[in-house]
Amino acid sequence: MSLASWRSPLAHALHRNRSLAYARYLQLATVRADQRPANRTIVFRGFLDGTNQLQFVTDARNEKADQIDRTPWGEACWYFPKTREQFRLAGALLLVRADHPDPLLLKARQTAWQALSDGARTQFAWAHPGKPQTDRDGFNVPVPEATTPLPHFCLLLLDPQEVDHLELRGDPQNRWLHQQDGSGWSVQAINP
Amino acid sequence: MSLASWRSPLAHALHRNRSLAYARYLQLATVRADQRPANRTIVFRGFLDGTNQLQFVTDARNEKADQIDRTPWGEACWYFPKTREQFRLAGALLLVRADHPDPLLLKARQTAWQALSDGARTQFAWAHPGKPQTDRDGFNVPVPEATTPLPHFCLLLLDPQEVDHLELRGDPQNRWLHQQDGSGWSVQAINP
Repeated sequence: MSLASWRSPLAHALHRNRSLAYARYLQLATVRADQRPANRTIVFRGFLDGTNQLQFVTDARNEKADQIDRTPWGEACWYFPKTREQFRLAGALLLVRADHPDPLLLKARQTAWQALSDGARTQFAWAHPGKPQTDRDGFNVPVPEATTPLPHFCLLLLDPQEVDHLELRGDPQNRWLHQQDGSGWSVQAINP
Repeated sequence: MSLASWRSPLAHALHRNRSLAYARYLQLATVRADQRPANRTIVFRGFLDGTNQLQFVTDARNEKADQIDRTPWGEACWYFPKTREQFRLAGALLLVRADHPDPLLLKARQTAWQALSDGARTQFAWAHPGKPQTDRDGFNVPVPEATTPLPHFCLLLLDPQEVDHLELRGDPQNRWLHQQDGSGWSVQAINP
């Protein structure tokens, strides 16, 4: 596979904003069962080896997982404060659960689990997210082992089909639209 | 009207993050005509007087305006880097165009126009956003007058019905769900 046309400007943005830990945070929009949008902050976990797919992790007990099962499409909005630029990445979402049939993706799921910090891994052992909090006991849990992911741990992949890159710096601003066609990616300048 | 239960924690977050200009940026998710989600960064412009409605501005020539006409519902995701907290605000969207029947909202639209910087106001005079860029002449425009909004300038209102507030600091994290019922707002602690 060849790198998509938006990979170079995105890598550049990540590099120039690397002093900010939250430059790896972005917002992922999905669609709820009632056709209304949902939106939350997620953490970028690098690209799946040999692909242009962004990796995230999530808990299958979250509403997000049900939303993706129903409508496997998302748009990520990624704003970089230091360089004042925005990437909007629209594409297919793939949730890799414990029973996924592809062994390569299962392996990637395990690698993602192992790459987590102890703190991040422990959150997957917490009480059911989003449910009313009855007591704090559901959070007094040991750190799960790094070897085997907990059953509801999911790798989440976003495979962008269209990327809208806006640079707020510049007079006027610069904006490019990257689009996937059958054979690769095309890019054109569009009005900001 | 009385302040919603989430107004105080949100005001607190805005205050404690006030040194970051981009703490007033948030991401708004809407739904496209093809039922896929859209997501982009927008700038918070304060509350509509005497209400719990968040104000933004937008250009009626944007795709966002069509999406809101079709599905007048959005979810804003607002991450505050300094205090490490997130607000997810889901609610009805109302686009106040030049021909809106409510004179009070038309007045608010005019006030929002006047409150813009020259630079922000000029962007509404730029060439059609999102169209292929043919030349740079569409950006060599004078600053529009502050007195009367350009025809495609819109005030955009988000009237939250549910607000999910997550504090990443804390062990475990704290999370509250604010929900509107007929008479007012209720709030409960939920699992992070």
